[in-house]
Amino acid sequence: MIKSRLQALRSFLDHNQLDAILVPSNDPHQSEYPPSHWNIRSWISGFTGSAGLVAVTLNEAGLWTDSRYFIQAANQLDGTEIVLHKVIDRSNPGYLDWLCSRLKAGSKLAIIDQLVPVKRYRKIKDKLKQNDLSVQLIEDPFQTLWKERPDLPDDPVFDHPVQFAGLTRKDKLEIIREKMAADNCSFHLLTTLDDISWSLNLKSSDVECNPVFVAYLLIAKKYAVLYIKPGKITNELSANLEKDGIQIKAYDNINDDLSNRIGQDKILLDLSVLNMSLYSSIQKCEFVDKPQIPVLLKAIKSEHELACIRNAMIKDGVALAKAFYWLENTLKSDPVSEYRFAQKLAECRSQQEHYFGESFHAIVGYNANGAIVHYRPDAKESAEIRSAGILLVDSGGQYMDGTTDITRTIALSEPEAEVMENYTLVLKGMIALSKARLPKGSTGVQMDSLARQFLWNREKNYAHGTGHGVGFFNNVHEGPQSISPACNSRARNPIQRGMIFSNEPGYYEEGTYGIRIENILACKHTENEDFICFESLTLFPIDTRLIDNQLLTAEEKNWLNEYHDLVFKKLSPMLDTTHKEWLSHKCQHI
Amino acid sequence: MIKSRLQALRSFLDHNQLDAILVPSNDPHQSEYPPSHWNIRSWISGFTGSAGLVAVTLNEAGLWTDSRYFIQAANQLDGTEIVLHKVIDRSNPGYLDWLCSRLKAGSKLAIIDQLVPVKRYRKIKDKLKQNDLSVQLIEDPFQTLWKERPDLPDDPVFDHPVQFAGLTRKDKLEIIREKMAADNCSFHLLTTLDDISWSLNLKSSDVECNPVFVAYLLIAKKYAVLYIKPGKITNELSANLEKDGIQIKAYDNINDDLSNRIGQDKILLDLSVLNMSLYSSIQKCEFVDKPQIPVLLKAIKSEHELACIRNAMIKDGVALAKAFYWLENTLKSDPVSEYRFAQKLAECRSQQEHYFGESFHAIVGYNANGAIVHYRPDAKESAEIRSAGILLVDSGGQYMDGTTDITRTIALSEPEAEVMENYTLVLKGMIALSKARLPKGSTGVQMDSLARQFLWNREKNYAHGTGHGVGFFNNVHEGPQSISPACNSRARNPIQRGMIFSNEPGYYEEGTYGIRIENILACKHTENEDFICFESLTLFPIDTRLIDNQLLTAEEKNWLNEYHDLVFKKLSPMLDTTHKEWLSHKCQHI
Repeated sequence: MIKSRLQALRSFLDHNQLDAILVPSNDPHQSEYPPSHWNIRSWISGFTGSAGLVAVTLNEAGLWTDSRYFIQAANQLDGTEIVLHKVIDRSNPGYLDWLCSRLKAGSKLAIIDQLVPVKRYRKIKDKLKQNDLSVQLIEDPFQTLWKERPDLPDDPVFDHPVQFAGLTRKDKLEIIREKMAADNCSFHLLTTLDDISWSLNLKSSDVECNPVFVAYLLIAKKYAVLYIKPGKITNELSANLEKDGIQIKAYDNINDDLSNRIGQDKILLDLSVLNMSLYSSIQKCEFVDKPQIPVLLKAIKSEHELACIRNAMIKDGVALAKAFYWLENTLKSDPVSEYRFAQKLAECRSQQEHYFGESFHAIVGYNANGAIVHYRPDAKESAEIRSAGILLVDSGGQYMDGTTDITRTIALSEPEAEVMENYTLVLKGMIALSKARLPKGSTGVQMDSLARQFLWNREKNYAHGTGHGVGFFNNVHEGPQSISPACNSRARNPIQRGMIFSNEPGYYEEGTYGIRIENILACKHTENEDFICFESLTLFPIDTRLIDNQLLTAEEKNWLNEYHDLVFKKLSPMLDTTHKEWLSHKCQHI
Repeated sequence: MIKSRLQALRSFLDHNQLDAILVPSNDPHQSEYPPSHWNIRSWISGFTGSAGLVAVTLNEAGLWTDSRYFIQAANQLDGTEIVLHKVIDRSNPGYLDWLCSRLKAGSKLAIIDQLVPVKRYRKIKDKLKQNDLSVQLIEDPFQTLWKERPDLPDDPVFDHPVQFAGLTRKDKLEIIREKMAADNCSFHLLTTLDDISWSLNLKSSDVECNPVFVAYLLIAKKYAVLYIKPGKITNELSANLEKDGIQIKAYDNINDDLSNRIGQDKILLDLSVLNMSLYSSIQKCEFVDKPQIPVLLKAIKSEHELACIRNAMIKDGVALAKAFYWLENTLKSDPVSEYRFAQKLAECRSQQEHYFGESFHAIVGYNANGAIVHYRPDAKESAEIRSAGILLVDSGGQYMDGTTDITRTIALSEPEAEVMENYTLVLKGMIALSKARLPKGSTGVQMDSLARQFLWNREKNYAHGTGHGVGFFNNVHEGPQSISPACNSRARNPIQRGMIFSNEPGYYEEGTYGIRIENILACKHTENEDFICFESLTLFPIDTRLIDNQLLTAEEKNWLNEYHDLVFKKLSPMLDTTHKEWLSHKCQHI
């Protein structure tokens, strides 16, 4: 199947005098998780992970993906001609070097104009030029090659009530317009789905687990235009939006509008996310290249949003208490499949108020499966959890009052010393970041080392970031901040008061087990205001049976005991006696 | 005096229809410490620190400098119209925002073409353009304005013998040429003085404390041309250089040669250091923009160089033992001026073999003076050191077999609890970095947090970097690596095996005291080769009287005791009985 798809793609290249093509995993909005319409990379390669890029020449093909997907990709590419290339340094993934080494001077690389942001396009072009290669922008060829390609989603758009959102969409647009004015811009183009959904307090289910919808938003001084597939907005909602000065136009109208309407006025846009197709439409306009204004507005949670999130965290902790209690009890007599437990987690969450769905597909990894960082248990084939070894559970919920993401690793039997050592090193890093203070203006890369140092000192590490920003009933991965060893543009965003992010160090022994412990933290100022520190938002016990007490300092034990006191205080009023007793046991001091 | 100089500069601006000018502190080679010929920023402002930029408009003037110089700049600018602007974030120093807020639309900013690197020029131009301002490149106006301007130095150039350098200049040029060939370049232009002096094994004293000389070097496939002021190279040396395929030409010939000779061949150069004057001469050529090849070659010390450096460190430790012993003894009866002790340090170093001079002007800061990070005691006015309080001493030597840089803070009387707490927090950070392990490819910004975390956790910090690269009988500050909180291009250079750098956290209470502890470390691989760790090269005891033992872990105490064992083992064979006994006392276990 993959063979005939690659064949069709190569015929297309050949027919158009092209020598290679890049097939990326993003959509025109630079979404990390795009609607299935844009899963062209999965279609051409069979690899279904969330991150990865395929490059196809007339006689070779490769996939570049990061460590989260090394195992999955190797399995899914097996039997195809596509070669897996492991990306170690994401700032230099290597596919361009590969292309330069494969293509003869004068060759042409095809890039799909809608799918490449301006800045990346320029870098690719420069690099190829140095090797006497050129780039040709093309329209999406999968529109004809992929016969059963899913259409753009028709899911209805709905309001995110202001009781949760805190600010009305009118207020939000006014705040954005003030910042546009400060940059002398009459227009602001938003192309990223999470920024549009935050700005308009509108949600939908176009993307699995992330309550956003496919659209563009053009904000002018006195009005705004939402470009969206017809039929997704009801007449009633449309009338309400009109009252707020928001017009609705068809999704495809964006290019024409951009080229015709703006004229001499300055437009604020971000060339690191704007795709080349839209860029070609604004080339006549003057523009200011800056991060989209809502990026920082939505990353810095308001007091109202934080209050909502604290409530969502209680609900999430209660759901988890019920699910984990159920698991422990069931395992006494029967095994439970990883898939069944993932279902159980969703069930328990769905009993909570204002629940909308999972914030990502739960990772339930028993023993060796825990080492597959983005593992997703399959309904048919998932492993049976038994009372032996350890279990890694990374899951989260979308509630109207907040998005959650939590990982716990639990012992299912008496743990081995080596597992306890590694668990404790991970925990020490997680605690170090939780209780750290840093000067205002500190960045994610500075924080990242604090979480890794104990593993590093024993020559161990984990091949993923330490943390990501989290949306407010929005994408579970949300920038601009990032807690990661990479010193890239993203890592340079200071962690500011009100930002929330995950703190999730881990350790993985491929083929044996995986450990990860994750809480969501909120950044706040210390009393003197020159330093930042963190509030632990997530409320669920950390398994103390896996701790090697000798490796913890008195301060670390104190932190853990105080955290468990907080967890019990917040969750116990919502639990019946059985669950309360169970929780009390889990929250015992060490 | 400053007033009349500013007046003359403004007349020049006015006469040429210019509205403002930037006066930077660097030379055409982007030297941190330029020869006095280029001290135009000191001349125009009276501020003599090593870093700082002056911007002058027709009716205002400002100086932008970093925290090392806040106190000194405030003193030196006192009585002038020049306003001190404190740079907190070096990636965004703020002078362009200041100019944009001062200048009317259509105004012209003058920039001296020789003194601005291409990339900085482009950034300035873009920023100004967004504010409807323009840039005009001009020739250096201080050539006529500054009547007593020192000429370019005439100091003779001499050989750095291969017994120290390890590789001959011929070998070094061949290694460089191999890397040029890998980038398809026929030429490589070196404009930075430390890279030229390293590549040719040639030294001089054009710049105080840094044994480099003013020149450009153009390396071709079969020959090289050194552009240098006539008279600096003796006939004998010239003949030797010719044997190695190196021609000598006058310094000023570089522009003509670049525009006439290269033609169609590709030239490798670095636009982040190449100045606009030279750039205008190569605009017809094809070029590859990359870091200059010797940058990394000289940063990664060879085993031979490391062996030399280890020897230089023993000599330096011996010199320090004699100087500090003398200080302690003298203080029993008499005060010692800071200036006198700086002299004594240089005297003791000068008794060591292959000594060339100081690697920077020693910082001897008694009590409050210790808080002035780049303090330099003055012959006439320096403070009298007495047996009360603490003393910060940061000094270094240039030996033919290595460059040293060490800071120690010592107690002169029973220390206060607060001083001990802060000293111990600094020491904990210094130890954490000394004994850290990190994955291969880790960068300075990741290491920086390890040294700061203990201060941070008590809401304290220091406003300078944690460490800098160090040359091998070359500049005491040498890139590309940097241990600093900034996530800039420099911080992105991984710390590689063979690199050496300073580890110098500190803590300062303005007006009261300063603490800094500094060793030079060498990066090496751990046994499994996937991790790096560090060898402490510097050999001199760390004052244990200032330690609050309760704040150190058992592991930290072990590190300190083992370090002191090493210091005693290495230095004691070179010392007489009196000094040996003194050292033994200083190296006692805690």
